[in-house]
Amino acid sequence: MITREESESRISTLQRQLKGKGLDGALFIFPIDVYYFAGTRQNATIWIPVAGEPILMVRKSLARARNESPLTDIRPFPSSKEFASALPAEALKIGFTYDVAPVQQLNFYAKMLAGREFVDISPLNREIRSVKSTFELQQMKRSGDILSSIFLNVPGFLKEGMRELDLAAEFEYRLRKAGGEGYVRMRAYNQEFFGGLAVSSGAASYGFLDGAVSGKGLSNTSPQGASLEVITRNVPVLLDYCGVFNGYISDMTRIYVFGAVDPELQRAFDLAIEIQAYLQRELKPGVICEELFLNAVEIAEQGGFGDKFMGMPGEQARFVGHGVGLELDEFPVIAQGFKVPLQSGQTIAIEPKFVVPGKGVVGIENTFAVSPQGGIKMTDIPDGITFLP
Amino acid sequence: MITREESESRISTLQRQLKGKGLDGALFIFPIDVYYFAGTRQNATIWIPVAGEPILMVRKSLARARNESPLTDIRPFPSSKEFASALPAEALKIGFTYDVAPVQQLNFYAKMLAGREFVDISPLNREIRSVKSTFELQQMKRSGDILSSIFLNVPGFLKEGMRELDLAAEFEYRLRKAGGEGYVRMRAYNQEFFGGLAVSSGAASYGFLDGAVSGKGLSNTSPQGASLEVITRNVPVLLDYCGVFNGYISDMTRIYVFGAVDPELQRAFDLAIEIQAYLQRELKPGVICEELFLNAVEIAEQGGFGDKFMGMPGEQARFVGHGVGLELDEFPVIAQGFKVPLQSGQTIAIEPKFVVPGKGVVGIENTFAVSPQGGIKMTDIPDGITFLP
Repeated sequence: MITREESESRISTLQRQLKGKGLDGALFIFPIDVYYFAGTRQNATIWIPVAGEPILMVRKSLARARNESPLTDIRPFPSSKEFASALPAEALKIGFTYDVAPVQQLNFYAKMLAGREFVDISPLNREIRSVKSTFELQQMKRSGDILSSIFLNVPGFLKEGMRELDLAAEFEYRLRKAGGEGYVRMRAYNQEFFGGLAVSSGAASYGFLDGAVSGKGLSNTSPQGASLEVITRNVPVLLDYCGVFNGYISDMTRIYVFGAVDPELQRAFDLAIEIQAYLQRELKPGVICEELFLNAVEIAEQGGFGDKFMGMPGEQARFVGHGVGLELDEFPVIAQGFKVPLQSGQTIAIEPKFVVPGKGVVGIENTFAVSPQGGIKMTDIPDGITFLP
Repeated sequence: MITREESESRISTLQRQLKGKGLDGALFIFPIDVYYFAGTRQNATIWIPVAGEPILMVRKSLARARNESPLTDIRPFPSSKEFASALPAEALKIGFTYDVAPVQQLNFYAKMLAGREFVDISPLNREIRSVKSTFELQQMKRSGDILSSIFLNVPGFLKEGMRELDLAAEFEYRLRKAGGEGYVRMRAYNQEFFGGLAVSSGAASYGFLDGAVSGKGLSNTSPQGASLEVITRNVPVLLDYCGVFNGYISDMTRIYVFGAVDPELQRAFDLAIEIQAYLQRELKPGVICEELFLNAVEIAEQGGFGDKFMGMPGEQARFVGHGVGLELDEFPVIAQGFKVPLQSGQTIAIEPKFVVPGKGVVGIENTFAVSPQGGIKMTDIPDGITFLP
């Protein structure tokens, strides 16, 4: 449950932004956007006027939305004829999330609200959500704590000779029993993510996933994450998993190996730790995201691993960190072209990784909160490679 | 891998439909649509002209797309300036999937292809995919066989006193080890699904999910499926799970109980079996979907359970079956308003269920293939309630 104060604070932040853009209100139809403002993820649309009370219009389940949401005006979804009159007649400029709303949805609302103008507020919406409240930071820390506890247990269930898939199953089983909600929300078009990656081979570490490591997966329809490959001696195992608790996603990566790692991979890993330390120090309000990325690339290059940073040559991702919260791919992105300053309370997964073709994948990932003192680690267990006998 | 013949057959079916609608071609950008025609689910866009060879334009990973797809023209995604010239100049009317394409995506392509007309081909696309090829029916049967094998093992891991969540974790663990790919694709806006439902309480069986039973879930952000409620004696446990193998989804439900079921619930269950038997007989080409739904409602009403059919009073879903394949919610839908005839080779999950407030949820679900002899069961294990000591 989110409190009325939490909901009101989010809504008033949005209303200030709408006012600044000269908009009369916004309609949100994407489930997690509705949840953020209304505290319920039932099938509903929320109208938030630039001033005054929002209206939550619910398709299914109205009873459940009323139980869950702290809002006061919660109604059945109006008929097409009545929809226009649910909104104030003077609301002519309406914000809408063009990043996730299908064309059919915009057409549906635009037809009912003929004569009013729709304006894309996708970036504004994502910017608001990137800054977490105290309540949200607590949720993120709790998510990070539970996920961390599963990572700490990996040496108890990771066995030499098991398939990547077996390791994934063992990890996911424990995560689920610990209350993991499972479904990892992503906003970007064309992305999908099932819980995490258990990858031990550097050979097929690339794919559609916007990240350094994809994994081979189980088929061409699910070409990411664990495969049927067997985990063998002296080959690092990369575990990159998300925990979802009360909707809040923590994201972390650790490396495990039976025996030893190749010296080149160890050097790459040490470089990843160095990059993470640099970024953690700089996760302060006002620092420009793009500069962090370019400096991370610089460290990788000076370390002699520039062409293996964030993916194998030709498949390199152009980022080193991403906002995370109710979605896995929130703002800000620590990436080229992202010339915006960090803000206190943003939560960011920092994930410097290296792919050394033929040898394997190594790296580190933790979720941090931006603060005046630098990044506060929300996934607070040791970073080093876990060596198993 | 899909073969060149399989891909060519799908593409030529589409081309005939495009020709019939006077379109010059279609652009597909939704991952599973691209996969269906191209055999790869990398991040790519496919141009399929009304006649001639398709072009697969790949953002990431080009190398992997080339390994996976049987198509011949596979290229890097063009720059914005070059995109228009990748398509034939005479292609002026272009099909696009407005049901799933975000507004930003349509705007992106419409800007690059200024002067050309975009036409919504969402229904056409779903209709084509609803009819499965021999290869696809084999995939569906394999998916149903593996999923069935997990259901047969439930008595070995379902324990009195465990939480719904524990049961979900045990089921999902075995499904994953058996090769389950996990991510269940849904097309409908505002729907999400994480593998399945393990629900023992009738109290919170409603929610945003378009189905008879939602489950309470673990939080307001994930309000479906297993909760922390404990499984107790004489209360039926409903397990509704999807298996995803090589992308193909099978969908089934079975009921388990420690001790006995309330006689009213047993009557409701028997009625579900009766409705399923009726529907299975009628799953023949030419039969109208809506009539099947209305007749199912009639049987439920005559049995005295009309107000509890497909959900509790006030929360009833208006369907009794749905197409299933690469997505959980394919065409056709056995629902009111769906006045189209069944076609041979369509695969449909039939799921008559009843919710008796205060007592529990019961029902059955199997995936069938439409054939001249009626529905062929792809999830072929006994339907009855499993009574545990």
